[in-house]
Amino acid sequence: MFQSFDSTADPSHGPARLKALRTAMAGAGVDGFLVPRADAHQGEYVAARDERLSWLTGFTGSAGFACVLKDKAGVFVDGRYRLQVRQQVADVFTPVDWPEVQLGEWVLENLGSGILGFDPWLHTVEQVEHLTEVFADKGITLQPVENLVDAVWDDQPDAPNAKAFAQAVEFAGESHAVKRKRLGADIAATGASAAVITLPDSICWLLNIRGADIPKNPVVQAFAILHADGRVALFIDPAKCADLADHFESDIEVHAPDELIDQLKALSGSVRLDKSTAPMAVASVLTAAGTTIDYGAEPCALPKARKNAKELAGTTEAHLRDGAAVANFLSWFDDNSESGISEIEVAKYLEACRTATNQLKDISFDSIVGAGPHGAVIHYRVTHDTARTLQSGEIMVVDSGGQYADGTTDITRTLAIGPVGDEEKRAFTLVLKGMINVSQLRWPKGLAGRDIEAFGRRPLWLAGLDFDHGLGHGVGVYLSVHEGPQRLSKVSHVPLEPGMILSNEPGYYKPGQFGIRIENLVVVEEAPSLEGGDDHRQMLQFRTLTYAPIDRRLIVPDMLTQDERDWLNTYHKECFERLSPRIQPETLDWLSQATQPI
Amino acid sequence: MFQSFDSTADPSHGPARLKALRTAMAGAGVDGFLVPRADAHQGEYVAARDERLSWLTGFTGSAGFACVLKDKAGVFVDGRYRLQVRQQVADVFTPVDWPEVQLGEWVLENLGSGILGFDPWLHTVEQVEHLTEVFADKGITLQPVENLVDAVWDDQPDAPNAKAFAQAVEFAGESHAVKRKRLGADIAATGASAAVITLPDSICWLLNIRGADIPKNPVVQAFAILHADGRVALFIDPAKCADLADHFESDIEVHAPDELIDQLKALSGSVRLDKSTAPMAVASVLTAAGTTIDYGAEPCALPKARKNAKELAGTTEAHLRDGAAVANFLSWFDDNSESGISEIEVAKYLEACRTATNQLKDISFDSIVGAGPHGAVIHYRVTHDTARTLQSGEIMVVDSGGQYADGTTDITRTLAIGPVGDEEKRAFTLVLKGMINVSQLRWPKGLAGRDIEAFGRRPLWLAGLDFDHGLGHGVGVYLSVHEGPQRLSKVSHVPLEPGMILSNEPGYYKPGQFGIRIENLVVVEEAPSLEGGDDHRQMLQFRTLTYAPIDRRLIVPDMLTQDERDWLNTYHKECFERLSPRIQPETLDWLSQATQPI
Repeated sequence: MFQSFDSTADPSHGPARLKALRTAMAGAGVDGFLVPRADAHQGEYVAARDERLSWLTGFTGSAGFACVLKDKAGVFVDGRYRLQVRQQVADVFTPVDWPEVQLGEWVLENLGSGILGFDPWLHTVEQVEHLTEVFADKGITLQPVENLVDAVWDDQPDAPNAKAFAQAVEFAGESHAVKRKRLGADIAATGASAAVITLPDSICWLLNIRGADIPKNPVVQAFAILHADGRVALFIDPAKCADLADHFESDIEVHAPDELIDQLKALSGSVRLDKSTAPMAVASVLTAAGTTIDYGAEPCALPKARKNAKELAGTTEAHLRDGAAVANFLSWFDDNSESGISEIEVAKYLEACRTATNQLKDISFDSIVGAGPHGAVIHYRVTHDTARTLQSGEIMVVDSGGQYADGTTDITRTLAIGPVGDEEKRAFTLVLKGMINVSQLRWPKGLAGRDIEAFGRRPLWLAGLDFDHGLGHGVGVYLSVHEGPQRLSKVSHVPLEPGMILSNEPGYYKPGQFGIRIENLVVVEEAPSLEGGDDHRQMLQFRTLTYAPIDRRLIVPDMLTQDERDWLNTYHKECFERLSPRIQPETLDWLSQATQPI
Repeated sequence: MFQSFDSTADPSHGPARLKALRTAMAGAGVDGFLVPRADAHQGEYVAARDERLSWLTGFTGSAGFACVLKDKAGVFVDGRYRLQVRQQVADVFTPVDWPEVQLGEWVLENLGSGILGFDPWLHTVEQVEHLTEVFADKGITLQPVENLVDAVWDDQPDAPNAKAFAQAVEFAGESHAVKRKRLGADIAATGASAAVITLPDSICWLLNIRGADIPKNPVVQAFAILHADGRVALFIDPAKCADLADHFESDIEVHAPDELIDQLKALSGSVRLDKSTAPMAVASVLTAAGTTIDYGAEPCALPKARKNAKELAGTTEAHLRDGAAVANFLSWFDDNSESGISEIEVAKYLEACRTATNQLKDISFDSIVGAGPHGAVIHYRVTHDTARTLQSGEIMVVDSGGQYADGTTDITRTLAIGPVGDEEKRAFTLVLKGMINVSQLRWPKGLAGRDIEAFGRRPLWLAGLDFDHGLGHGVGVYLSVHEGPQRLSKVSHVPLEPGMILSNEPGYYKPGQFGIRIENLVVVEEAPSLEGGDDHRQMLQFRTLTYAPIDRRLIVPDMLTQDERDWLNTYHKECFERLSPRIQPETLDWLSQATQPI
């Protein structure tokens, strides 16, 4: 199966590895060295050879970084990981509460003055510019050096070498030749001669390829140069592309990764680069070669986010297939939740239901399966060490998804285990109201996630409650389950456009007691005109992609307005109609019950 | 009375004045000259001598600018003024749809290359920086010159010379000495030695003074330098401050306006300047003198926006006084609306009701009094030429406010004239739902207007409708009725803080037919904790300041949720309780009827 339940944390190696790193620092003539979790592609998941942060410190969270000085080594983690980091790292490391404490101020306080080394492939242009500004005139010099963790990591795994494969145009909806020409013309229109693309999912989308370099993410790790005439130079181990000669045609040249620097030097004119994602090393090579850098958005970002008709048809189908698997799981869950099963058994059965579709390529992330107090841990990952037996009277958060050739899914349901208390039901209903309010929304074209995400929170706010994560993230099509640039978040200023897929996932978390999250994926589409509406106003709405029953036992019907109740009953009616032809026969009674109107 | 109903537009002078300006341009060696509506203080209203745009072109709108070239003269106006500009300017002027067409691109297209002159006192640093960037390497040079309109405007009025007077600390809540010391310390904390303040309402707030230089705005026109030790140099005609010697004490030095430049040159260290409001001329003087400019927010902006307890008590009282005057007006309106009265009579009676309080200092803006189709003109100003007789079956927008020593008011009510159609009632109810949803909101600290303004629009959006202005603006206390930096708007990223006063004024406009707007002022305050709420979450809410009945005849009760209905009935109950002791005896029956529950 795809998910593992092993604990990988091990604080014991930390002190020796830290000592070796400090020796390497002395050899390189630096007083400090930065160890980010990121790889050169700034993805959320990294390959084993890029797990430098956990190799060095023992900390296995999905975000954070270390700053190693001669006599202090800070491990910077956000609110999600404050407890975890203290369990996972040895006492030679100092946990730092980030972003409350910023790297710059910590370095100024603890280093005073000196040379801070960093690997320019692992930090973006924006990050380095920011630090350079913070350190200006403060006696601290940022210095690019070779990666000093790699220098002391003897058994560092090899780079991933999974073969890349073609994504059929039947799912992609557009050939890579058409995409390359179109985006090349966009680049030319800005006056640039080429764009350097450093994000694997952008490269996979552009070239209609997929891979298996990174768990849960069907991407290949590569860099690319897209020329204004539509030609692409792809920098990747050629062995990984052995099966793609026909697919690539003559306009895509495959180069070994170590040819990237020479090809960057050979570029002329102005070159588009996204400073929020491109490694500093790329900018440095271009600048040293005298090339003008045109900083701006990654050219694939918006075209990839606006899914075309074929991608949406595939995603719709993937969601019905996945919804049927989830319904089979939910039916089993209700039969077994009070029989002493553990969180791991729940995760295993859920994955088995998806595997039974015979079309599952991978899960789209490690399932979050948390009962009782574990539900309040927003990114809880169950392991053999943490797994809890389900208790009657608790509620359980199950957040999971699948990777299929035609689409990527992500769904959260919160489930009752036997009879549940009033406090949980009231909070569940408030979360549900927010989720429905967003589902029902129509809004004028031009608004961004920031402008509308509050609708998912208002019912909680009115009760004095809230939750500490965004309302939703972008989602790819057989690509990353977290995809930019669109988001339903206070920090997102990207206008929502038809074809963008987003999650709608309000929650509520009571630490140490219970958690609630309800998540559907939705796609932005043009809203039809309404009788009595202003027809000159172009409005958008969401179409729901996810179909699976929402636990009616957790709803307080009197707290819903008639509109909200109508939405829920219609949604459940559609769940029954769409899923009943696809589920196992033994799930039918359950589905019929679970989708009755309230 | 304060409001006049004269039309001031006169296209006939335009050609001769334009010709004279072009002669002056040739003399100054420039190929173009910019004529903004703004004065050196970037206020919304300008003194007669600063009405350069309307003197030159005939256009009298509250926003816009002209760009005069040798053979073309563009008058740039926004969507509100597209029709008006065509009626007001002669055909030697070319109306330009702004902001769809930007000044920079228009100049590049129509001038090609050459020298564009501008008066550096009338354009902000930000505006000049932006234009400089647009014109970089394009063959167009921006050149500061003396004001060429002033050079040819023979009978240009004198600068306003109304006497300034003290604002009692009983209303201000804090002495100017305390404010000066506190803000001086804030400036020192940023490492600056002084701040240049160019906004009249900031200076009036800081020094607890008021004036009458500008209609509707009780400010004095002046510049000021606030030193880090709390001393202030005020640049103003000393005669205007003749009565203020005692009030100012020794730490405020009054200088003639022409001493400003020398005093700017004498500053040392780094000087705080707000590039979004300060004239380019100020920055140029500082730069030429070798002084470091610390660009940042105007130091008075946030402290002025966060009203203290005394200011809020005064404002609350001003709103009840004003609400009683409005109730007297509304009662009269219902008795007379079908008797053939005109919009001007309505505006006059409304002003008379405020004047009868014996405490009205001025109206806070020209009342917008628009019946039938005039209601759809968002900033309609009634004149003898446009005034319409009220017709039974129409609805009417009345948007008005007063300036009192203890506060500034701004209220809009939409009123039925006899029996009204279903379309108007339905739209009115949708607008009301939005207004109530905002009034009821609670939200976590840290959010800005952008994050919550959509609540005022959602009921309209769901019906395919919307309105083309912000939901609300900041309001001063016996200062400007439009005050920054807080706003309820898609463009406002300033976090809302306790004490900030805002308008809550959704609307709906059907061009050529009718308009609807409902406006209360509200103040941000800490929300009390709720039973079952997360007590660690600090939440904010609005307290309503405005009390006057909302026209129940225009409401479709079935469209309101129970929560919305409860809010309305409670609001009307409070209207009766608070206003009944203050109204004329003959209004009592009307008020009792108008505040019955629905």
